[in-house]
Amino acid sequence: MSVYLHDIPLPDAKARLQYALEQADLWRVLGMETIPLDENAVGRVLAETIWAKISSPHYHASAMDGFAVLARVTVGAQPSNPITLRVGPSAGALAKPEACYLDTGDALPESYDAVIPIENVESLDESGEIISDIRDPSFIRIRAAVTPWSQIRPLGEDIVQTQLVLPAGQILRPVDLGAVAASGHQSVNVARKPRVAILPTGTELVPLGYDLKVGDILEYNSLVLAAQIKVWGGDPTRFSITPDNFDAICARVEEAVREYDLILLNAGSSAGAEDFSAQVVKKLGTLLVHGVAVRPGHPVILGLIRRGGMRARPRAIPIIGVPGYPVSAALTGEIFVEPLIAKWTGRQPQELPVERAYLTRKITSPGGDDDYIRVAVGKVGQRLLAAPLVRGAGVISSLVHADGLVLLPRGMQGAEAGDTVDVRLYRSRAELEQTIFCIGSHDMTLDLLAQFLSVHNRRLASANVGSLGGLIALKRGEAHLAGAHLLDPETGEYNLSYIRQYLYGVSVRVYGFVGREQGLMVKRGNPKGVRSLLDLRKPEVNYVNRQRGAGTRVLLDYQLSKINLPVIEIQGYDLEEYTHLGVAAAVASGRADCGLGIPAAAQSLNLDFVPLFQETYQLIIPKDYYNSELLAPLFLVLNDSAFKQAVVSMPGYDVKQMGRLIAEV
Amino acid sequence: MSVYLHDIPLPDAKARLQYALEQADLWRVLGMETIPLDENAVGRVLAETIWAKISSPHYHASAMDGFAVLARVTVGAQPSNPITLRVGPSAGALAKPEACYLDTGDALPESYDAVIPIENVESLDESGEIISDIRDPSFIRIRAAVTPWSQIRPLGEDIVQTQLVLPAGQILRPVDLGAVAASGHQSVNVARKPRVAILPTGTELVPLGYDLKVGDILEYNSLVLAAQIKVWGGDPTRFSITPDNFDAICARVEEAVREYDLILLNAGSSAGAEDFSAQVVKKLGTLLVHGVAVRPGHPVILGLIRRGGMRARPRAIPIIGVPGYPVSAALTGEIFVEPLIAKWTGRQPQELPVERAYLTRKITSPGGDDDYIRVAVGKVGQRLLAAPLVRGAGVISSLVHADGLVLLPRGMQGAEAGDTVDVRLYRSRAELEQTIFCIGSHDMTLDLLAQFLSVHNRRLASANVGSLGGLIALKRGEAHLAGAHLLDPETGEYNLSYIRQYLYGVSVRVYGFVGREQGLMVKRGNPKGVRSLLDLRKPEVNYVNRQRGAGTRVLLDYQLSKINLPVIEIQGYDLEEYTHLGVAAAVASGRADCGLGIPAAAQSLNLDFVPLFQETYQLIIPKDYYNSELLAPLFLVLNDSAFKQAVVSMPGYDVKQMGRLIAEV
Repeated sequence: MSVYLHDIPLPDAKARLQYALEQADLWRVLGMETIPLDENAVGRVLAETIWAKISSPHYHASAMDGFAVLARVTVGAQPSNPITLRVGPSAGALAKPEACYLDTGDALPESYDAVIPIENVESLDESGEIISDIRDPSFIRIRAAVTPWSQIRPLGEDIVQTQLVLPAGQILRPVDLGAVAASGHQSVNVARKPRVAILPTGTELVPLGYDLKVGDILEYNSLVLAAQIKVWGGDPTRFSITPDNFDAICARVEEAVREYDLILLNAGSSAGAEDFSAQVVKKLGTLLVHGVAVRPGHPVILGLIRRGGMRARPRAIPIIGVPGYPVSAALTGEIFVEPLIAKWTGRQPQELPVERAYLTRKITSPGGDDDYIRVAVGKVGQRLLAAPLVRGAGVISSLVHADGLVLLPRGMQGAEAGDTVDVRLYRSRAELEQTIFCIGSHDMTLDLLAQFLSVHNRRLASANVGSLGGLIALKRGEAHLAGAHLLDPETGEYNLSYIRQYLYGVSVRVYGFVGREQGLMVKRGNPKGVRSLLDLRKPEVNYVNRQRGAGTRVLLDYQLSKINLPVIEIQGYDLEEYTHLGVAAAVASGRADCGLGIPAAAQSLNLDFVPLFQETYQLIIPKDYYNSELLAPLFLVLNDSAFKQAVVSMPGYDVKQMGRLIAEV
Repeated sequence: MSVYLHDIPLPDAKARLQYALEQADLWRVLGMETIPLDENAVGRVLAETIWAKISSPHYHASAMDGFAVLARVTVGAQPSNPITLRVGPSAGALAKPEACYLDTGDALPESYDAVIPIENVESLDESGEIISDIRDPSFIRIRAAVTPWSQIRPLGEDIVQTQLVLPAGQILRPVDLGAVAASGHQSVNVARKPRVAILPTGTELVPLGYDLKVGDILEYNSLVLAAQIKVWGGDPTRFSITPDNFDAICARVEEAVREYDLILLNAGSSAGAEDFSAQVVKKLGTLLVHGVAVRPGHPVILGLIRRGGMRARPRAIPIIGVPGYPVSAALTGEIFVEPLIAKWTGRQPQELPVERAYLTRKITSPGGDDDYIRVAVGKVGQRLLAAPLVRGAGVISSLVHADGLVLLPRGMQGAEAGDTVDVRLYRSRAELEQTIFCIGSHDMTLDLLAQFLSVHNRRLASANVGSLGGLIALKRGEAHLAGAHLLDPETGEYNLSYIRQYLYGVSVRVYGFVGREQGLMVKRGNPKGVRSLLDLRKPEVNYVNRQRGAGTRVLLDYQLSKINLPVIEIQGYDLEEYTHLGVAAAVASGRADCGLGIPAAAQSLNLDFVPLFQETYQLIIPKDYYNSELLAPLFLVLNDSAFKQAVVSMPGYDVKQMGRLIAEV
């Protein structure tokens, strides 16, 4: 067994799979089914071109409520020279009438060739008097001539019998169903949905709702894959979890091969001790690819599994070994499964819209892989910005927060901040233009703010880079606002001196947001007896710090200098987290004994809290944005008592300054 | 009863409805339901914010296959100074080991704080020899130090317990389901789907599949509306057809009001003799609006219907009287129903992406209405072009062909060719960039060409403006290619002299496409005995012509001049159709006795054909495009024998010149 996989480039891997499927006569629409033409046909893919069986309208129809006439008898009618026509029933009258009443949609009787709208005639009784029952006169008087075929929808105006109505491969939309119906069809032939078996494997996996023990891994990749497949037009089935047992996995694959068009085996696709996928594929079929040069997701397996049974059926079906990390699994779906379902249903593969955007920070890449970088995207000023997100393949929330993907192709070792890159967008341009880019310090009330803003059709994308990082982002024009709580030790003021230093030349306003406590988060019962910063020097106390540039870090350093405690004496000073919750989690899990932060974070993870300081968290907004339509809802929320109530219901917050203009710099 | 409706502006109509719904406490999310967290949750709208119940990972997990160690015991390890560590089981060992093996995802045992990937160690047996069973050694040798917490996914790396995972109002995507699962949920609270009753009314309506008689109208508006509602997240029910009978309609509405959240009454919303909707609404509730200043679709009714029953339920529900023309009905859905479903499910209303585009021709508007113009959209050169489509409210195929909508707001009386307008796009920018804009003469093989091109991921948008119109479009840079069959009477050549005249200064290539017969389409059995153009002068023969600039019209005029037949002597010379099929339909329906055209059109509608002339239909492609990637698939298709076969299987075609370069001008 090899420890390393020999990854092959993505296009080669796809080509190998395509070639194998072509050889197996599986690179085509898998099959067709006839379904009734009802609302459930929406979203299905036409397997055959629709030709019109009838014309629409299928007769000459009146386009208005009005009177059918022969155009030539109206010739000469003028305001000063009205013409009066005898009205009769549309059919079967003894005397031949010169006009007859038609509702919109009624058929034009044989001897007429135009319709005069009812509002253009005077309806008269037998004695020539104008009457109110305008639809049932004995005569009509007209004061203008009409041309032949006016106000008539001629046969075939919409659709002519035999014409092409919709091409094969069309994904049916609501209006398409109307056109299919209008052309005389009651059913449609659509591509049948490919059946996909999703086989979660792993002794450590447990299903949702299970009482988790340490080491258990919640199995939800099959959920994400099934939902992807459903959205893409396939028919997914989630199998129950199979433990890491070669024979058990083989049995499951052999069960699936009988009824399905595609098997997704998740995970066990790498080369670890319990990674059986490759062996299973080798035993039951052909291993085409083991390892693709794509990140995240490189330990992908592509293969074919032999299938017995009836001669008319394919002799093999494809299997994809999907990597176990959730981001890898989801991207493997997008990269390999979506195009397969597209081919099998006869539609075009989905292509995400692509836009050029500026990278907000440097990214590196191993260079040998096609590297998919998740990014948050927002429009600040005239520039579309792409802010790289956390890159761990295990961090599914990074996919949730991703507004798009940047592909660093094989051969590129990275990109610099300020480079323009192509972003494949998960969100519409309109959504991105409603995105408020907030970069800076982390505070838990930003989640609440995001919630309240969403009611006003604004998305708050917040990147936690610390207070100073937020100011730098404003200086670079990379954010609409920044949250900061930078204490100036000399003045005791917050933020202003830093703004003058780091935002020189940029006009901003500073608004009050929240006042909050800072203190030490400690385990329940405070087992190490931490009471003040001085206790951090105790050898048995492990600290967890915030990253450089964070306001909380500035506060710590300031307070340490006041008590002359050198950082070298603090165990764990170099261990950095980027958020209050990250610090809290480190304490809760025992990775550290304490960390400076806010009480809301401590409460969230059931920690005790040693209050130490009071501080001010402010919002800093450049001149270009504080009067913008984009940010208008922010000020509504800052003055919304429901929002203030929600904030103060979290421990350690006050809202005395919320929304107040503190300074204009 | 009034003949005219007093239309009110669209924003006022919407405001009236919203106000009435607010008063009735119906301007909010209607309700919530708890559904299992499975793939069927995709697309549903979260009714409540999701907060994390657990952290993910919920323990410190190894990020790699490797060996857990204490980082501080690795200090000093170097290539020249390896350190050897004793390996033991992860728990319960008698002697305390210095390292233990972990698979990816395994929990980090208490006494360790880092993981060394397996590829970075040498696995040794008891005697210190390197062994191949690398996962079960007695000792490992390392040649580099590691830092604490390296290769570990700490508790909460992805999601920290209590954090906001997804906000209320989020439409669940596949990856969202993963994040919800990872944060400890097995079910989700989503907005319940609004139940919408669709009541088709009209004595003239018949269901799909009915054997149509003249005057019958196929009822498919309910199908389009139901599909729209399904796509937008509602739960539609199509009632059977109710005849135009006031009491019957009242009974149906009273039936629907008991179980549904919204009633769509279609049609009868205008002010005609059998338009009962307004009376029904007045009788059973409150009529809010009758007539909205919007085209198509102005005879819209908005109202509330009283509801009895249990006190906890709303006392009224809204009703929308939907106009009967299919385009009006579909647009009424988009304008009024979609925002209501958005509000009731707590999501943002859908907004189509908007792009600026150049109008290819003048459009007029009555000025008093918000006028929605359906347009075909394509990118020619650097410009996005919007070509207005047929505007009849009965032409559902115009919605099928529409790539977007241009809104001419109330007060604007039209727009000129060359004006830039905002287009709300039904298609993605990527699709538009794969669109080949073909403007010019109509030929039935263009439908076939569209079909074959779609396999190559190209959409052919063809506008039929006649041969000369196509050349003018090329001159203006408004098409990628034009189809033309313009005979030069002096030279007998096709197109070249016209190109020199109308495309002066534009370099183009002329490619052969099809040779085809032209002749007179006549009714089966040729009852009027038409044998040649000379017969067109007979008083009993009614002709139907093609529009000015059409190659077929040029051909007719040329042939008439050869036989000295003045056009004034031809009855119906002024009756114009824009396509061969349009001419065929006019003959088939009796609107005319004959028309010049191609045999395929005659065959389509079961007409007889009197062959008269042979002509050449060519494709004219400007220099900018004949080598473009966009048009490359066109040349593949022109050389595809399957395509040629499909063309010659239609009557009267030859493909001798297909794909051949005829001239470069």
